[in-house]
Amino acid sequence: MITRMSELFLRTLRDDPADAEVPSHKLLIRAGYVRPIGPGLYSWLPLGLRVLRKIEKIVRDEMTAIGGQEILFPALLPRAPYETTNRWTEYGDNLFRLADRRGNDYLLGPTHEELFTMTVKGEYSSYKDFPLLLFQIQTKYRDEARPRAGILRGREFIMKDSYSFDVDEDGLKSAYHAHRDAYQRIFGRLGVNYVIVSAVSGAMGGSASEEFLAESAVGEDTFVRCMQSGYAANVEAVLTAVPPTIDIEGQPAATVYDTPDAPTIATLVDWANSAGLPQFADREVVAADTLKNVLLKVREPGGDWELLAIGVPGDREVDDKRLGAALEPAEYALLDDADFAKHPFLVKGYVGPKALLANGVRYLVDPRVVDGTSWITGADEPNKHVVGLVAGRDFTADGTIEAAEVRDGDPSPDGAGPLVSARGIEIGHIFQLGRKYTDAFSADVLGEDGKPVRLTMGSYGIGVSRLVAVIAEQHHDELGLRWPSTVSPFDVHLVIANRDTEARAGALELAADLDVLGTEVLLDDRTASPGVKFKDAELLGVPWVVVVGRGWADGVVELRNRFSGDKRDVPVDSAAAEIARALA
Amino acid sequence: MITRMSELFLRTLRDDPADAEVPSHKLLIRAGYVRPIGPGLYSWLPLGLRVLRKIEKIVRDEMTAIGGQEILFPALLPRAPYETTNRWTEYGDNLFRLADRRGNDYLLGPTHEELFTMTVKGEYSSYKDFPLLLFQIQTKYRDEARPRAGILRGREFIMKDSYSFDVDEDGLKSAYHAHRDAYQRIFGRLGVNYVIVSAVSGAMGGSASEEFLAESAVGEDTFVRCMQSGYAANVEAVLTAVPPTIDIEGQPAATVYDTPDAPTIATLVDWANSAGLPQFADREVVAADTLKNVLLKVREPGGDWELLAIGVPGDREVDDKRLGAALEPAEYALLDDADFAKHPFLVKGYVGPKALLANGVRYLVDPRVVDGTSWITGADEPNKHVVGLVAGRDFTADGTIEAAEVRDGDPSPDGAGPLVSARGIEIGHIFQLGRKYTDAFSADVLGEDGKPVRLTMGSYGIGVSRLVAVIAEQHHDELGLRWPSTVSPFDVHLVIANRDTEARAGALELAADLDVLGTEVLLDDRTASPGVKFKDAELLGVPWVVVVGRGWADGVVELRNRFSGDKRDVPVDSAAAEIARALA
Repeated sequence: MITRMSELFLRTLRDDPADAEVPSHKLLIRAGYVRPIGPGLYSWLPLGLRVLRKIEKIVRDEMTAIGGQEILFPALLPRAPYETTNRWTEYGDNLFRLADRRGNDYLLGPTHEELFTMTVKGEYSSYKDFPLLLFQIQTKYRDEARPRAGILRGREFIMKDSYSFDVDEDGLKSAYHAHRDAYQRIFGRLGVNYVIVSAVSGAMGGSASEEFLAESAVGEDTFVRCMQSGYAANVEAVLTAVPPTIDIEGQPAATVYDTPDAPTIATLVDWANSAGLPQFADREVVAADTLKNVLLKVREPGGDWELLAIGVPGDREVDDKRLGAALEPAEYALLDDADFAKHPFLVKGYVGPKALLANGVRYLVDPRVVDGTSWITGADEPNKHVVGLVAGRDFTADGTIEAAEVRDGDPSPDGAGPLVSARGIEIGHIFQLGRKYTDAFSADVLGEDGKPVRLTMGSYGIGVSRLVAVIAEQHHDELGLRWPSTVSPFDVHLVIANRDTEARAGALELAADLDVLGTEVLLDDRTASPGVKFKDAELLGVPWVVVVGRGWADGVVELRNRFSGDKRDVPVDSAAAEIARALA
Repeated sequence: MITRMSELFLRTLRDDPADAEVPSHKLLIRAGYVRPIGPGLYSWLPLGLRVLRKIEKIVRDEMTAIGGQEILFPALLPRAPYETTNRWTEYGDNLFRLADRRGNDYLLGPTHEELFTMTVKGEYSSYKDFPLLLFQIQTKYRDEARPRAGILRGREFIMKDSYSFDVDEDGLKSAYHAHRDAYQRIFGRLGVNYVIVSAVSGAMGGSASEEFLAESAVGEDTFVRCMQSGYAANVEAVLTAVPPTIDIEGQPAATVYDTPDAPTIATLVDWANSAGLPQFADREVVAADTLKNVLLKVREPGGDWELLAIGVPGDREVDDKRLGAALEPAEYALLDDADFAKHPFLVKGYVGPKALLANGVRYLVDPRVVDGTSWITGADEPNKHVVGLVAGRDFTADGTIEAAEVRDGDPSPDGAGPLVSARGIEIGHIFQLGRKYTDAFSADVLGEDGKPVRLTMGSYGIGVSRLVAVIAEQHHDELGLRWPSTVSPFDVHLVIANRDTEARAGALELAADLDVLGTEVLLDDRTASPGVKFKDAELLGVPWVVVVGRGWADGVVELRNRFSGDKRDVPVDSAAAEIARALA
């Protein structure tokens, strides 16, 4: 196929668009791949659509290869199924809602678990019909609060969403791992640099959910990883490396001290270092020796507000994202003065485990608070702290919670080395849903033993349109885009940079030869100057650029690699074959 | 590619769905191609999606072949551009409207003239950039009052819409004819029986708009055609065959008669036949000899109500659809008693040309009212008619109007024979829009002479998802679907109808051989009985069915043609090659 630039619907722009913040957005606009239509809404111009379709095809191929069957649902969906699962409400402002001419409620689908579950329930009735893996590549809608960064976070976007249905856990696990492998092949073929991170804490079931994050400084997701072992997790999902327990035997008894000038952790540490405490004869007291108790009220869905205390080492803050993930689906809030007033045993600033446990307040501690660790903490009286309060001897918490902040340098939970944080863009998500949706729709089939079996389900997504921006984000330089050959809109960008009639005729012939070899050729046959053409070639980012230029008289064309910047001359006669070889 | 029915997500139904009215709807549901999700909303299951994609590909190929460049717009669109053209309002209840979280108005695009015009204006600025032809294959939305007949008239559907942009009329005509030819190739390749009908009256500019209608008894569009010449037109667009003018010289003078008992056309004809009128010495008076004047009030957009009289032969009613099309964009209503009271010169039931013309009422007549035709009509006094009122002598109307009903047997405007009416389903529409949208957005480019040129535009649509139902509607029998090979979900349906282990192994081998030859094979490897399998094969409608059955022992398989019903035995050894030959 030969596409002539003289006819291509394309206008490149010299300047960055005013509202573009990230490189991929700037370049995809400047190079004429996409155009904004409204906040978070973009049109795909010919070059952009070609890249999008190539990504779609790779995703489709790999989904088919693991036994996925493609179907297609509407984007406009009735309210009822989303009411059944409560997502009509839960999605809040993120859901586009509308009414039809009869006043019936509809939504624009953000994801399709409900419809897939209902459809499978409607068609299939026996264990013999499973395993089943269905997918679609479809337009989705989310009314993002801050649509940003071009197609990285749009309000209308294209996703591959797939859903596995199985009659047992082994089937679900196998579907999950098939997806995990397929996603690795997909992102590999697309040339994306990515990490797989645990997306929910191990407490919810090991590898029940993982995210594929493309490494990128402009990513909205923060994750941490251990370079030594490859362990990686969302901040919400990071497991704390648990220190070994300490012998309790022989530790000095807890002692209460007056600490009149120590209302903060810093002043408490100062006091402790000047108090000549026997426990710290041979080292300095640090903030991590103190135990800070944070008071919350928590309400499970449909329940009442209840008190919850969280104990974390004094050198760490409670991370709101981690706390939220740990308490989900409950809502929570810090105690205010009125709440403290209602519970006089809570002495603000001096709350210690003793009063909490004596008064039946639920008390969860950081995993670092293992048996035998000794703490300086509140003594439940104003201006008093207790020193040498030993976990497992002087108090026993109700459990642990992953709520303390994660810091660069923290040990990886696998013990392999320190954690470092990085930013990424979510490009894929795999999730062992289990029976959340099949329960909602009572999706049972007849089991091998003649009794009903509730189906178990996985859901798996890839942000197809977002990947166009992700690849642009990871592969560009100051001159423009640089596409991996698997997704480039064309295989070769053939630039006619010689006004000589014979050179032009030769270029057309070379394009035809390449076409015969199955190569997709973008032919710059415009009357523009060579300089303009070279700039456009750099901006558009086709990986191989062939220049019919000055060398024509000497029987050579120039072959440029947009990635490496390498240039070399190739004899005209063997050019097509040589280029095809370079492409393969 | 081999697809095993034992794994295919498919459940065929024995019974017609309760709410399905038309054969394509019944069969596409029964055969598991689509499933209803809500009124006018369907999901595409694997077989349906395969047919849809094949249609899309044929449409895309032919659009690309005429120089179309594919792009893709969002379906969710901001209100402003549709406000500019007034379509935000004009679409009425047919438009799905919604607001985002900030309260800004959006719509789900029913068609994209606005966006294409704005985009072309944004990118291009010189006559050198044209001609330009852009298209998309995209999901569209219309809130139909009565979504019906399955995917024949859905509320979410897939269309190919294309738009041509040119700097002059010749360019527009050329783009229009390129589309016309491409559409003929597309519908030809799809195996659709169709007619091309004029969609608007010639008064608006000849071939400015044509519809492609698939012939179908369940179609919502009525059209007429002349079997002798191939002339075809929407009822709104039918041109009346104009009779030759008649010599006025020597015709008797108009005479007013008392007609006390002739308030209707029928009683007037009775009176005339008994009155011994000199003009009718040698023949009977018929209703077509009378001239009926229908009084309306008409209001152009932004204008005032004005009187309009329409004169049609007394044997014909005014057709509301034709009248509406002729007066568009004006609105209109019949005069009521109060209106008559305001204009005493209008004697209800006895209105004649004389009073109309004397009082300056706009008067349009049927094209059959040519000079020299003599009429019996109202004499503008109660109980009086005039006989022998000759057009061109006694009155001259302000013009003609195509408002009288069209009847089977009316002469074709090309004189080739009678018109007959039929029903069809709109599958394509080509439209020379001219400057309607480029005016709205002031889409000018610099002309060759350095002065601004307003672009002229065409818009062209194909109902891609509807075509799945149209093809099913035209090609089915009482047993099931019968796909043309170009759109069939598979090339071959290979049925294992022999429980013998060797036969089964042989069938798998044959499937593999066909796969190697590039054939898409649906392999019925289920444990079901041969009878069930044959019924499903008939229902699913793949054109070639290969049966590995009883003949296996004799070294033959059976090759069935789902279209013709022909069956013949083919030697096993040469089966793959022979089937591939039959397919080609």
